[in-house]
Amino acid sequence: MRILEQTLERIRSQDTAARQTAKDRLDQLTMPHWAMGRILDLSLDLAGITGSQRPPYRRRTIIAMAADHGVVAEGVSRYPQEVTAQMVHNFVAGGASINAMARQARTDVLVVDMGVAGDLSALYANEKLVSKRIGAGTGNIAKEPAMSRQEAVRAIEAGIEIVNSIADEVDVFGTGDMGIGNTTPSTAILAAVTGMVPADVTGVGTGIDDTQLLHKIRVIEAALQANRPDASDGIDLLAKVGGFEIGGIAGVILGAAAQRKPVVIDGFISTAGALIAQLLAPAVTDNLIAAHRSAERGHRTALAHLKKEPLLDLDMRLGEGTGAALAMNLVEAAARLLTEVATFEEATVSEAKM
Amino acid sequence: MRILEQTLERIRSQDTAARQTAKDRLDQLTMPHWAMGRILDLSLDLAGITGSQRPPYRRRTIIAMAADHGVVAEGVSRYPQEVTAQMVHNFVAGGASINAMARQARTDVLVVDMGVAGDLSALYANEKLVSKRIGAGTGNIAKEPAMSRQEAVRAIEAGIEIVNSIADEVDVFGTGDMGIGNTTPSTAILAAVTGMVPADVTGVGTGIDDTQLLHKIRVIEAALQANRPDASDGIDLLAKVGGFEIGGIAGVILGAAAQRKPVVIDGFISTAGALIAQLLAPAVTDNLIAAHRSAERGHRTALAHLKKEPLLDLDMRLGEGTGAALAMNLVEAAARLLTEVATFEEATVSEAKM
Repeated sequence: MRILEQTLERIRSQDTAARQTAKDRLDQLTMPHWAMGRILDLSLDLAGITGSQRPPYRRRTIIAMAADHGVVAEGVSRYPQEVTAQMVHNFVAGGASINAMARQARTDVLVVDMGVAGDLSALYANEKLVSKRIGAGTGNIAKEPAMSRQEAVRAIEAGIEIVNSIADEVDVFGTGDMGIGNTTPSTAILAAVTGMVPADVTGVGTGIDDTQLLHKIRVIEAALQANRPDASDGIDLLAKVGGFEIGGIAGVILGAAAQRKPVVIDGFISTAGALIAQLLAPAVTDNLIAAHRSAERGHRTALAHLKKEPLLDLDMRLGEGTGAALAMNLVEAAARLLTEVATFEEATVSEAKM
Repeated sequence: MRILEQTLERIRSQDTAARQTAKDRLDQLTMPHWAMGRILDLSLDLAGITGSQRPPYRRRTIIAMAADHGVVAEGVSRYPQEVTAQMVHNFVAGGASINAMARQARTDVLVVDMGVAGDLSALYANEKLVSKRIGAGTGNIAKEPAMSRQEAVRAIEAGIEIVNSIADEVDVFGTGDMGIGNTTPSTAILAAVTGMVPADVTGVGTGIDDTQLLHKIRVIEAALQANRPDASDGIDLLAKVGGFEIGGIAGVILGAAAQRKPVVIDGFISTAGALIAQLLAPAVTDNLIAAHRSAERGHRTALAHLKKEPLLDLDMRLGEGTGAALAMNLVEAAARLLTEVATFEEATVSEAKM
């Protein structure tokens, strides 16, 4: 608990003085006022998060958290549980979408075994994978808690520890996930935090049909009924209806914020982690960058609750960190606007005459 | 006219067989079906445009077309005409937003003097600038044609010639613009092509106020009234109410399509060029990728007329090619999905069970 507490204590809102200094420069760039729109808004965020007028952006790492979920026994996903471990192998081999998107965005991917049901120990020698495993998948939340309170803290601290261990070599963090069934706990968290009924926020995940969707809604209702999580207590909520990778993502978000480094959150599962992080440290949302709006139904609600406007809206619903990877380009663009574009005075360009 | 005619003859719709072959592979990638959404749609477009299952993407060039507009004498812009030449200097020096965005996207920028009022000859020795100048700015369209029919053809052919001269070294083209006052001719083109009244499609450009906007609408109405362009004839429309850089952009689009290379169009001015190109070769739109939705009012209408859904929507309204640069990342992402992501079979990942 020490690491978590120390981390929470260090989380601050954005540096308003650094934001203002950045704004004073950006107002003078050789363009009609604020003509780069949301990229300039992001430039301000980078200054506010880092406290720097030259926010570093070159070294980027997406931490892809993988774990399994006991609730798949209820038939909530189209895919068998073994796919989680298979996809972790795919991540490490470099053949998954996250790998291709990260290569595009010149971003590293670090895969974390937070609790995959299959045995991944053969991969532990690979530097692209770290083990922080807490168990062989969570409990079936339809009937029991996902994990103990102690395990929930350990999951979050695992994310923080990973951030701390590489923070000296990373300028911008990103989050990603892999876990068959993980839209179910994520939706349970969203419903609990917002007070909305599962029927209004549950989506099709990997692509279930209408009958399966109704069943998934019933399973999420049962999970909230059976566990009665305290929606004001992030640890309790994670323990009762969460997932190991969701806790790990919350930890990455908290850890990055404590380091005053920007963290780009991916899709629906990552926002569930952000909701947990927000409960533990409300100011953490100041340090988040929402990569994209997922096609998963509840994502719009989750982003609205976090008061975050996503950068991209490309009908994606894959997770893995793919949206975070694509958004890294925009983070770099925002940093470059702040540091590389001339002002009217510097470039001897005439200003508006009226 | 030979170059233009030969180019128009070579423009085809997408290769449907190549699209289908790509779709067959993308349907099997290790992800829930089509979970990368619009990036996968773009993968199909790249296969269809290039006819290749390995669409090249590494070598990218944005052609930024610069020119001046006689209509600025009517007071339609907040900025003085000299800013066009000043910004071309800024482009060549690397201090403009397009330079920063292009560096982010690992994309080259080639600036073309299509007819800037100021003297840019001191820059002609620079390999980043090419002169294809047709005149020292267009005529004032509120009272006279922008240019002669011959000049309109020359402007379009200039764009084609530039594409042809570098096509061996470029995989993906992009368009950009610089020209104080150029939302006025672009809006005139849009109104003529769609039959909409200027009051319904005229926007604030660089940021004029309500009174100035009403005046701009009157100027565009006057331009259409004075010149009576034939909205079914792209050359006539360009000559009567267009601009040298708009013609150049149309040429780049046509030239790239004839080369079966993707062309990423930027914002409002670039779509005006695309509207001209579409009139000359309707199939050209199959080869276009719309980078973003600009905040400029008429852009939504222009994209709808082209039947193009933009990739980004970031409240940008700068032009220069900045949106095209950012979208190059997504083009690369789409190409990588097609060539770098494993299928279920290749990665030994279990498929959906239901």
